[in-house]
Amino acid sequence: MATLTGVVPPVLTPFTADGEIDLPSLERLVTRMLEAGVDGLFALGSSSETAYLDDARRARVLEAVAGIASGQVPVLAGVIETQLDRVLTHVRVAERVGAAGVVATAPFYSITGPAEVEAHFRGIAAATDLPVWAYDIPVCTHYKLGPDLLVRLGSEGVLAGVKDSSGDDVSFRRLAMQNRAAGEPLTLLTGHEVVVDGAYLAGAHGSVPGLGNVDPGGYVRMDRAARAGDWEAVRVEQDRLAALFEIVFVPRDKVGPAAGIGAFKTALRHLGVIGTNVMAPPMVPLGEEHARQVAAICEAAGLAPLARA
Amino acid sequence: MATLTGVVPPVLTPFTADGEIDLPSLERLVTRMLEAGVDGLFALGSSSETAYLDDARRARVLEAVAGIASGQVPVLAGVIETQLDRVLTHVRVAERVGAAGVVATAPFYSITGPAEVEAHFRGIAAATDLPVWAYDIPVCTHYKLGPDLLVRLGSEGVLAGVKDSSGDDVSFRRLAMQNRAAGEPLTLLTGHEVVVDGAYLAGAHGSVPGLGNVDPGGYVRMDRAARAGDWEAVRVEQDRLAALFEIVFVPRDKVGPAAGIGAFKTALRHLGVIGTNVMAPPMVPLGEEHARQVAAICEAAGLAPLARA
Amino acid sequence: MATLTGVVPPVLTPFTADGEIDLPSLERLVTRMLEAGVDGLFALGSSSETAYLDDARRARVLEAVAGIASGQVPVLAGVIETQLDRVLTHVRVAERVGAAGVVATAPFYSITGPAEVEAHFRGIAAATDLPVWAYDIPVCTHYKLGPDLLVRLGSEGVLAGVKDSSGDDVSFRRLAMQNRAAGEPLTLLTGHEVVVDGAYLAGAHGSVPGLGNVDPGGYVRMDRAARAGDWEAVRVEQDRLAALFEIVFVPRDKVGPAAGIGAFKTALRHLGVIGTNVMAPPMVPLGEEHARQVAAICEAAGLAPLARA
Amino acid sequence: MATLTGVVPPVLTPFTADGEIDLPSLERLVTRMLEAGVDGLFALGSSSETAYLDDARRARVLEAVAGIASGQVPVLAGVIETQLDRVLTHVRVAERVGAAGVVATAPFYSITGPAEVEAHFRGIAAATDLPVWAYDIPVCTHYKLGPDLLVRLGSEGVLAGVKDSSGDDVSFRRLAMQNRAAGEPLTLLTGHEVVVDGAYLAGAHGSVPGLGNVDPGGYVRMDRAARAGDWEAVRVEQDRLAALFEIVFVPRDKVGPAAGIGAFKTALRHLGVIGTNVMAPPMVPLGEEHARQVAAICEAAGLAPLARA
Repeated sequence: MATLTGVVPPVLTPFTADGEIDLPSLERLVTRMLEAGVDGLFALGSSSETAYLDDARRARVLEAVAGIASGQVPVLAGVIETQLDRVLTHVRVAERVGAAGVVATAPFYSITGPAEVEAHFRGIAAATDLPVWAYDIPVCTHYKLGPDLLVRLGSEGVLAGVKDSSGDDVSFRRLAMQNRAAGEPLTLLTGHEVVVDGAYLAGAHGSVPGLGNVDPGGYVRMDRAARAGDWEAVRVEQDRLAALFEIVFVPRDKVGPAAGIGAFKTALRHLGVIGTNVMAPPMVPLGEEHARQVAAICEAAGLAPLARA
Repeated sequence: MATLTGVVPPVLTPFTADGEIDLPSLERLVTRMLEAGVDGLFALGSSSETAYLDDARRARVLEAVAGIASGQVPVLAGVIETQLDRVLTHVRVAERVGAAGVVATAPFYSITGPAEVEAHFRGIAAATDLPVWAYDIPVCTHYKLGPDLLVRLGSEGVLAGVKDSSGDDVSFRRLAMQNRAAGEPLTLLTGHEVVVDGAYLAGAHGSVPGLGNVDPGGYVRMDRAARAGDWEAVRVEQDRLAALFEIVFVPRDKVGPAAGIGAFKTALRHLGVIGTNVMAPPMVPLGEEHARQVAAICEAAGLAPLARA
Repeated sequence: MATLTGVVPPVLTPFTADGEIDLPSLERLVTRMLEAGVDGLFALGSSSETAYLDDARRARVLEAVAGIASGQVPVLAGVIETQLDRVLTHVRVAERVGAAGVVATAPFYSITGPAEVEAHFRGIAAATDLPVWAYDIPVCTHYKLGPDLLVRLGSEGVLAGVKDSSGDDVSFRRLAMQNRAAGEPLTLLTGHEVVVDGAYLAGAHGSVPGLGNVDPGGYVRMDRAARAGDWEAVRVEQDRLAALFEIVFVPRDKVGPAAGIGAFKTALRHLGVIGTNVMAPPMVPLGEEHARQVAAICEAAGLAPLARA
Repeated sequence: MATLTGVVPPVLTPFTADGEIDLPSLERLVTRMLEAGVDGLFALGSSSETAYLDDARRARVLEAVAGIASGQVPVLAGVIETQLDRVLTHVRVAERVGAAGVVATAPFYSITGPAEVEAHFRGIAAATDLPVWAYDIPVCTHYKLGPDLLVRLGSEGVLAGVKDSSGDDVSFRRLAMQNRAAGEPLTLLTGHEVVVDGAYLAGAHGSVPGLGNVDPGGYVRMDRAARAGDWEAVRVEQDRLAALFEIVFVPRDKVGPAAGIGAFKTALRHLGVIGTNVMAPPMVPLGEEHARQVAAICEAAGLAPLARA
């Protein structure tokens, strides 16, 4: 089984003005990322507004992304659910569409102890032949996955990789060290858009940047520079991308995905990639004043709208 | 529409040894509560291990509870889901089985701001004729529902009541005061088993005690005493129930539902009400040493096993 | 040694317009509480802005309160400090002025484990003959003192009592139960102004209400009613006091003591008890619009300004 | 005024077996750091067990460090206190001993809002001619200092620099970007020992590594490599230091300084630099089994004990 390293953006879910999944926009979005040279795609991550999609919509999005990718790059499928049985429902869809792996968080909603978290991941792996990735995102699950657990599950073949969105870079460094000491059973991807350079230094094998929807080429260039050991190029590219990431701080009256995904969608609308900046209800999209600020930041970062056909 | 006050226990979901929903045990459990005089039933609450049940199982449990109650008391249906569309899936089932209302939490998993939380509850109410109850459980959702919002939504007819499991008794007192000042649009039920007496003093209209699965009669007696203004009787009953609640602290190596629901199920197995103390995976049931301690606490609280037929 | 039960308000520290300790205001404040029949005084608590006072000012405040009380009621002395040596500095002052006990929090600032917390309280008790009270205030110390530890230290004679400002009423109930089972080694006082009634039901021996600066008579009446088992009177008085407590929610742009103590001082200025509503820098006092709202709430609660001589 | 960049270790406070400040050990510790080429010293930081030292001991430690440094490198003085007046007491000592600046946290213990935090730093700066550094350590203060505030106060001359121990690397990147955009008014030092490499990429001007007590030479080499743009050397040195940092995870039964400082002191005792691994009470030092593990990690990282004279 080939490992999946490099740039694997979490694919946003575009909506039409009346709230339907906007497949033509999704196709433009994914195609643009493929043309930029991304190494894989992560469908149904947090950035896909997955928590807002019912089972039918999740399946439709995953099928669409897999269809557009059509084997050019591997597609990871998020299976974000409170608990095991519900996770497995989505694992079956992932198997059906030929996903390259599933990405599961710790259980959430109910308070869960370490034994249950471990059993959760073991339960998923036991139920599928797909590689299982751990998605460490305590801001959503309120549970931090420790390096000891992750490397142990990697060594036993339960986990294939980790998508780290923990914001805990000390822990990430320890994860990378322990993973190396164990023979690198895990592929380590960071989800923190603005410190990917430091994560590469620490030993990340790639990134899952939400901002990679807006500027996939930047992350690909940074990845290639890191592989070449050209850290000065890495640093410069990261600085440009960090400046671009300021779009998520434009809507000061919003928090969480209403701000972050709202800004990404607003930028992509400005760039002509997707049709609207609509989000799943009850999230309200960014207004026009914010959209102007987002557009200005995009321009300052050197991003030009797609040429109209 | 009659209001639902008094004792409304959240109904546990018994499992067979091989993990299937144990309908005969569920029938014994509910029947025992009805015989004790409870005023309503809350199916698919957190104590029902709802987060661990897929859609089909949730529907089966709700249908079963509604069938057993068969109109003797109203049944509230939990619709615990990350977001609106997913909530509405469960609302449709609740409508179908004739539930007396639906109980919804704030959105969870994704970080959500106050405007989105408000829109979430409005969205549910706009989509159903059933009364909508807010379930304030920040330990699971990581969002505290404020008294201002709740009373405002109550006054506008969006919310019919609140199930308060916030553990924030200052906030609960303020909620009761503001609700009274607004003409009591909301029915207020507390979910904190061991301080129901104080909640009655503060203005609660009843309780939703998980421990009411184990000792429904105790909560009914406390409720009747509170209605009669016999606070000394309230206090004495609450003290006995608080001593019984110590069963949840027996498994010191467990947290959350693995401890609390695990202890309730173990007590109910000891009492001959349900067949096993099995929980949904990945939760491991209490072992025999813990079971002995739970049984001893039950006996000290005056609970005797059901007579064998 | 007589136990200290009943109403023991934490005494605010009034300041003059130029930020000096205002001893005439302090005397009026304490005298009014003594006339209302309080059972003790707690100087240098959180409500005294103790964290904002250097050692010299702390000593001056404690001496002043002890002097005004002049043996009419016992005076507890807060010894709020990050760690042991620093606590003992203040313990020496408390001994010198004849305090009836010292009130110490868990260590704070540095992260501390349970062994260190226990050693901290043992260290204080070993160094003084004064009774030592534990001050459970996790919102400030970020450490919750568990019932097991408290009752164990009570049984060994390390602790004489607990001032509970934890807001965790389930834990408080368990503390009261375990304390009773151990023969009541601890005196339990609650610091939560608006749920004192429930705390009495649960077994509190009294209260340490910040709001008792504004309306000491109300808390004394509630205490006497609770001792008499007249719970209806308790409830009614608590409801009135809870309505009065709304003054702390008037300054919506402030948090913590800037809001709470700010409102208490503004109410006391309105009532003619203290000269200004100045707080220790960098806290800014409430403005005139907020002062008007505070005054209106005081009047609605039946509090009239002191008659001018 | 010369800016202070590069490696500025927070100096531990060695104790004798009976708990006195061990000046000969302190002299060996500081001298070893000076010989390794550190660019400055930070006395009375969190790593100095400052929260455990009363005023007299703090002064003695600061005087000793300044005396040993004797002008060879600048000495920053921590002024860690709950509030302004208490901070200023320590600022006066810092002025007296010729410190190059004072390092102050946000207020702690009492809950504090943004206006009060800003006024706190302004109050310090207004009261001294010494440069004021902000110490961002939310794990202790439970308040995160935002980039906007810090850069604004830097631009106005209130703050000279930031010691970032926030663990929030996204925020640190934004701080570095905003600081650059404002003309670099602030000197930015990171306190996170194991991700200093990423911090340099992000724009840090240096580090304040607790682990720099144990291996000052490593941090100096990393700093010189970063200045030279030799990122591969930076990465390799950081990896070695991160492996060494594993000493703090040896005592799995301890948290906070009892683990971290306990491990540093145990390593330094092994290396022959300080005489004991005693910490301030109530912290219990690491035992011999842990000491053996710490020694083994030191040896694996290439650290040899000082030659005996």
